[in-house]
Amino acid sequence: MDFAYDQVTEDLRERLLRFMDECVYPAEAAFEEQAAESGWSLPPLLDDLKDEARKRGLWNLFLPGEHGAGLTNLQYAPLAEILGRSPSIAPAATNCAAPDTGNMEVLAMFGSEWQRKEWLQPLLDGEIRSAFAMTEPDVASSDATNIATSIVHDGDEYVINGRKWFISGAMNPNCKIFIVMGKTDPEAPKHRQQSMVLVPRDTPGLHVKRGMHVFGYTDADHGGHAEVVFEDVRVPVANLIGEEGGGFAIAQARLGPGRIHHCMRLIGMAERAVELMCRRALSRTTFGKPVARQGVVQDWIAESRIRIEQLRLLVLKTAWLMDTVGNQGAHTEIQSIKIATPIAVEWILDKAVQVHGAGGVSQDFPLAALWAHARTLRLADGPDEVHKRSLAYRELKKWM
Amino acid sequence: MDFAYDQVTEDLRERLLRFMDECVYPAEAAFEEQAAESGWSLPPLLDDLKDEARKRGLWNLFLPGEHGAGLTNLQYAPLAEILGRSPSIAPAATNCAAPDTGNMEVLAMFGSEWQRKEWLQPLLDGEIRSAFAMTEPDVASSDATNIATSIVHDGDEYVINGRKWFISGAMNPNCKIFIVMGKTDPEAPKHRQQSMVLVPRDTPGLHVKRGMHVFGYTDADHGGHAEVVFEDVRVPVANLIGEEGGGFAIAQARLGPGRIHHCMRLIGMAERAVELMCRRALSRTTFGKPVARQGVVQDWIAESRIRIEQLRLLVLKTAWLMDTVGNQGAHTEIQSIKIATPIAVEWILDKAVQVHGAGGVSQDFPLAALWAHARTLRLADGPDEVHKRSLAYRELKKWM
Amino acid sequence: MDFAYDQVTEDLRERLLRFMDECVYPAEAAFEEQAAESGWSLPPLLDDLKDEARKRGLWNLFLPGEHGAGLTNLQYAPLAEILGRSPSIAPAATNCAAPDTGNMEVLAMFGSEWQRKEWLQPLLDGEIRSAFAMTEPDVASSDATNIATSIVHDGDEYVINGRKWFISGAMNPNCKIFIVMGKTDPEAPKHRQQSMVLVPRDTPGLHVKRGMHVFGYTDADHGGHAEVVFEDVRVPVANLIGEEGGGFAIAQARLGPGRIHHCMRLIGMAERAVELMCRRALSRTTFGKPVARQGVVQDWIAESRIRIEQLRLLVLKTAWLMDTVGNQGAHTEIQSIKIATPIAVEWILDKAVQVHGAGGVSQDFPLAALWAHARTLRLADGPDEVHKRSLAYRELKKWM
Amino acid sequence: MDFAYDQVTEDLRERLLRFMDECVYPAEAAFEEQAAESGWSLPPLLDDLKDEARKRGLWNLFLPGEHGAGLTNLQYAPLAEILGRSPSIAPAATNCAAPDTGNMEVLAMFGSEWQRKEWLQPLLDGEIRSAFAMTEPDVASSDATNIATSIVHDGDEYVINGRKWFISGAMNPNCKIFIVMGKTDPEAPKHRQQSMVLVPRDTPGLHVKRGMHVFGYTDADHGGHAEVVFEDVRVPVANLIGEEGGGFAIAQARLGPGRIHHCMRLIGMAERAVELMCRRALSRTTFGKPVARQGVVQDWIAESRIRIEQLRLLVLKTAWLMDTVGNQGAHTEIQSIKIATPIAVEWILDKAVQVHGAGGVSQDFPLAALWAHARTLRLADGPDEVHKRSLAYRELKKWM
Repeated sequence: MDFAYDQVTEDLRERLLRFMDECVYPAEAAFEEQAAESGWSLPPLLDDLKDEARKRGLWNLFLPGEHGAGLTNLQYAPLAEILGRSPSIAPAATNCAAPDTGNMEVLAMFGSEWQRKEWLQPLLDGEIRSAFAMTEPDVASSDATNIATSIVHDGDEYVINGRKWFISGAMNPNCKIFIVMGKTDPEAPKHRQQSMVLVPRDTPGLHVKRGMHVFGYTDADHGGHAEVVFEDVRVPVANLIGEEGGGFAIAQARLGPGRIHHCMRLIGMAERAVELMCRRALSRTTFGKPVARQGVVQDWIAESRIRIEQLRLLVLKTAWLMDTVGNQGAHTEIQSIKIATPIAVEWILDKAVQVHGAGGVSQDFPLAALWAHARTLRLADGPDEVHKRSLAYRELKKWM
Repeated sequence: MDFAYDQVTEDLRERLLRFMDECVYPAEAAFEEQAAESGWSLPPLLDDLKDEARKRGLWNLFLPGEHGAGLTNLQYAPLAEILGRSPSIAPAATNCAAPDTGNMEVLAMFGSEWQRKEWLQPLLDGEIRSAFAMTEPDVASSDATNIATSIVHDGDEYVINGRKWFISGAMNPNCKIFIVMGKTDPEAPKHRQQSMVLVPRDTPGLHVKRGMHVFGYTDADHGGHAEVVFEDVRVPVANLIGEEGGGFAIAQARLGPGRIHHCMRLIGMAERAVELMCRRALSRTTFGKPVARQGVVQDWIAESRIRIEQLRLLVLKTAWLMDTVGNQGAHTEIQSIKIATPIAVEWILDKAVQVHGAGGVSQDFPLAALWAHARTLRLADGPDEVHKRSLAYRELKKWM
Repeated sequence: MDFAYDQVTEDLRERLLRFMDECVYPAEAAFEEQAAESGWSLPPLLDDLKDEARKRGLWNLFLPGEHGAGLTNLQYAPLAEILGRSPSIAPAATNCAAPDTGNMEVLAMFGSEWQRKEWLQPLLDGEIRSAFAMTEPDVASSDATNIATSIVHDGDEYVINGRKWFISGAMNPNCKIFIVMGKTDPEAPKHRQQSMVLVPRDTPGLHVKRGMHVFGYTDADHGGHAEVVFEDVRVPVANLIGEEGGGFAIAQARLGPGRIHHCMRLIGMAERAVELMCRRALSRTTFGKPVARQGVVQDWIAESRIRIEQLRLLVLKTAWLMDTVGNQGAHTEIQSIKIATPIAVEWILDKAVQVHGAGGVSQDFPLAALWAHARTLRLADGPDEVHKRSLAYRELKKWM
Repeated sequence: MDFAYDQVTEDLRERLLRFMDECVYPAEAAFEEQAAESGWSLPPLLDDLKDEARKRGLWNLFLPGEHGAGLTNLQYAPLAEILGRSPSIAPAATNCAAPDTGNMEVLAMFGSEWQRKEWLQPLLDGEIRSAFAMTEPDVASSDATNIATSIVHDGDEYVINGRKWFISGAMNPNCKIFIVMGKTDPEAPKHRQQSMVLVPRDTPGLHVKRGMHVFGYTDADHGGHAEVVFEDVRVPVANLIGEEGGGFAIAQARLGPGRIHHCMRLIGMAERAVELMCRRALSRTTFGKPVARQGVVQDWIAESRIRIEQLRLLVLKTAWLMDTVGNQGAHTEIQSIKIATPIAVEWILDKAVQVHGAGGVSQDFPLAALWAHARTLRLADGPDEVHKRSLAYRELKKWM
């Protein structure tokens, strides 16, 4: 047992921290300004940052194997944490932003050669963005078997009909490709009914209707969260990912890394919140003493530190398990971090907001927006309650 | 001891509930649409609703005495709760919306005859709106003695310099008058340094800079929350409210009713959240049974009911104390509800959001916006922590 | 709506407070000493206190109607709170101690003339004590239909077989009569299977086996919590309370007042805890300042005050409802206080313990013992979780 | 970074698990019976278990270096967790029980040759027990500079006067030696005033007055928690441990390992609680389904698992830091686990109690007693609040 990062990780951490200091943090103010003016497109300064990151060898860090940087989950995790400290910029600048990361993984693992050439390559090169269309407004999507979008095999084509929402990134016009989950065979066994197909943005019948809000935020600087209607959308059968009936399995495979990335970035956000909370508490005075000397504020700072340390270790251990025994063997731990991280980070952000007073809820600090993001992760990919039930069931089974 | 509402209250509750059913709820969708297009102005349908409310005798309910409906706090409280069920529309439609309510109280209590004629009357008639400019970005405003804006007596005028923010309602061009808190005498005893002056919107040097966000919301349908700069703003000495050095006392007098109104409306929001949570839980199915049959969801519903009942009673008792022993005698209770209500209602709204899944955080349900409002009230008018310290001090004094 | 106590209540409160100051608090130390030496019997000084209380007209305050003091629930509630400030002595001294209160109510409401003469009268006179035997070790007794003890009609007698535990008061040799709940007809509809019979302590086959502990406490000064075995115990049919099959209904009738009494006493305990917490915090110094000036301790004190005020109001309103619309109409509120009070008072006691340091968990302060009592009430009469489910179900039904 | 235990640890874990299964768990019932009859002495069956443990090489596992098993903290931690699963028996059986462990460490590190021969050796051999006398009833002992016991140098002797309480183990007549902390020089700098001296039990003037309770428990099976008065107690100067004025430093050195051992054992208790909670939930039925299928119970089980995993990792990392950078370098982490573990384990135990109903609070299950132990650790060695303040201060210093 050894709690030190390995040398590869240490080197990349150092390089990445330098990139953050030299390029990312200094760009934050300009990013906000450009975002206010670029509609649903991403702020243009991202392009320069992407060039710079690629030049520095900080590119596709998330992707194991030949297509990406080839890191293990355990090696990538501490880097993802650092990216999370500036979550609107750093992940995008290093081509490590959701949902493209998960989509690239899907294509790398399950895509045909043609699909990889056509869609994976431009994604790996950061030329286009992508979307993952699973959640539906009309059913409780935490139970994937509820999914109602139909994908009907019709000759050489699949015909797609359905309504999706909270399709992150899809408002961005540069989001060129959608991975769509739907049912090809409603009569098959419960977990063999679903399939995934690739749908290019300009396919007739694909209507991007509107951007969904998240606690008032449009998240336009991430490409928003679209409501998308598929009306008799036709794609060639070659657009099927993997096999018919394999959609549920692909979704599961996609979720493990996706969740751990989310958690690591959340921990980076929490670290930033603690920094902001401390700085603010040190700089403001009420009733004759610095806020930092208020006992309740000290309590929040200590609690924050203690919670972060525990979360980070559990996420790192989960990464190690994924690397050593596989995602299936790490199932309990993946669920654990999925449950534990957003709510703890939300708590920390809430306290940082409170220390900032009215400023904390406003656009002048990143805290409220980060909070909305953390809060939303308590229900994205299935609400915590669903995961807790499943986790409890495995615990109970030990004693049956 | 008697827990039944009196007859006046019962009659007004019935009338108001009918107004809600017949006029307010049916207008909610159109209000949202108009709000999306009316910039910082309020949606025009409010004007019709105001006429209707006035016709029905549901006007200025908040205001005791001759100028208003003449209700006690205890009589108004259950009505304010009902208004809170549709907080963007109902308070404005009945001329019971913050911050005008507090401003009208200030003018009714402390205003000169001229001030009442000039500003109170059009406010009572719902012709203009008003703002209360106290919070400043550069100091911890929870300690009112930190206020830095200067109000300098210069001949027949006061000259005002300073920066305020989160001035609710002030982005609305129909917000015609500002009550500004500043220091007239920085050398006076701590609570005699402040004064309040009336500053009309069009006074040279008054710059409404931008709307502050609350989480992602601009609250444009309430007139937003402005940052306002006062640069050598000059007003006649007749614009002083009350006497020089009386600003702190007026602020205190204003806060009691203001807080209880906020709390009652919050309880109405909580009731609406419970209704939405139940309806959603009954209508959605996951893993083979309605969400309403999930034990954890039932736990939330029960907890919500129990917390609401306790809060309502404490707010009502506080109102009764204000009526019988005065705001000063109700100090502990006013602080108690100020502390207890927002955090409990925030919790209820959070659970209602969770039951709604992704929809809960979006613009398709009112829950996320209500949450942001409740969250903000944990720090508006002084963060909970400041009030708890003060309340604890009084408790400790009993045993000294 | 009026939050002032009526004159009858005010007079009794004053008399009772004087009794507490003059007789109860001064007896606490001697009570502890006698309790250490009197085994399962109650400390003898209780007898003098009972005489004194009766002389002062502070007797059977809990019992409405001709047999008792004739108070409403609303009038008794604030008195029960005061009794709760010294819960080992004051309720017993005024003949208002559980479980006798509930048992006297049962006999007053459902007992035959003979039963009332034989058992109610000596209980009303404080000459004997009684027990209520419902909970069983072998089933989840929160679901009363699980009760397994059998009561078989055999000629002129009932024959009882079964095992009960946590029969409070039954270790006390002066506990002369047991009300036993069991099944007379396992084939009847679910809520008509149970009956209650009176079993005198000296009936052959009734074995008081041992005292159950509650977090290490034997509660010998309350008569403990016995495990009792009924082995072919025979009693005449005249010992049936009410009718065969009426046991469930009697149990329900008994629970309403029982719960509200528990809650009021808990609130008295919470008030005592706040007093002790404040006094300790004012008297101890750490790191150069009194503990009372630590922000976190102030936070606890404020929270405690706020929670107590809310609980008390909800309990009082519940009492008012029981008086005005009956126990059935107050069902939601009775469950609400049953759920809300123990956990809140437990929290307050926990904080008071923490402020006392090691002393807080010890026998030198009443806090740890009070805590164990409050904690146990989270599961006595059915765990909170069962009540929450039931309460949620009624809330959901509003929207079905 | 590697989350697997090393081979030494794995081997010892296997051996220890076998010892638990073969010897410890089977002895639990008899231990309870003997404990009920052996007064303040430890149950005699411990002697056989000690022989057996020693034979199996499971002896003094806690002690690094030549005197003990020579394990690192990281190697011992998972073993201590296993010992914690049966905390009354397993630590004592393997000579790894507090407070002897800390006392042996003090003697091994700071004891003179004579002190080691006289006292360390019999402790290492498990022939005698020892006590650590620091906490005082009359001052807030969390601030060690408050300690009031005086140790006056008088010729060849030290004269000790003072009152201590909660001296764990000291009621056991086989507790032969006390390490006493007191002030030798009240005029010295704050952290150089204290010294530690060895006081044999039979020294005149040492009065063991009474056993303090912890909630209702006397903990007689651990030797209780004594109040001890030192009245002109005289010991030779050779009984001074280390140097005069070194008491504070020795206390600090003793606390690091002591805390981590407590935390590891607590985690073992939490694991046992989860096992009991699951088994009970599976075996009981309410309202027609097993308790294990109640959503709220599942939520508790999942939360428990998630919290345990996080705690264990933080404790293991802390052990690793103590091994690699020393106790001083692990200061933040030691405080973190000291704060995080007891409250989380208390929560888990509370839920396990609730699932057990009335049985949970009783002597028929170990849960209530374990709860009392966990609760007490929230204030032993300084209440959490003191540690949080200190931890927050270090966090704030990063940004000063």
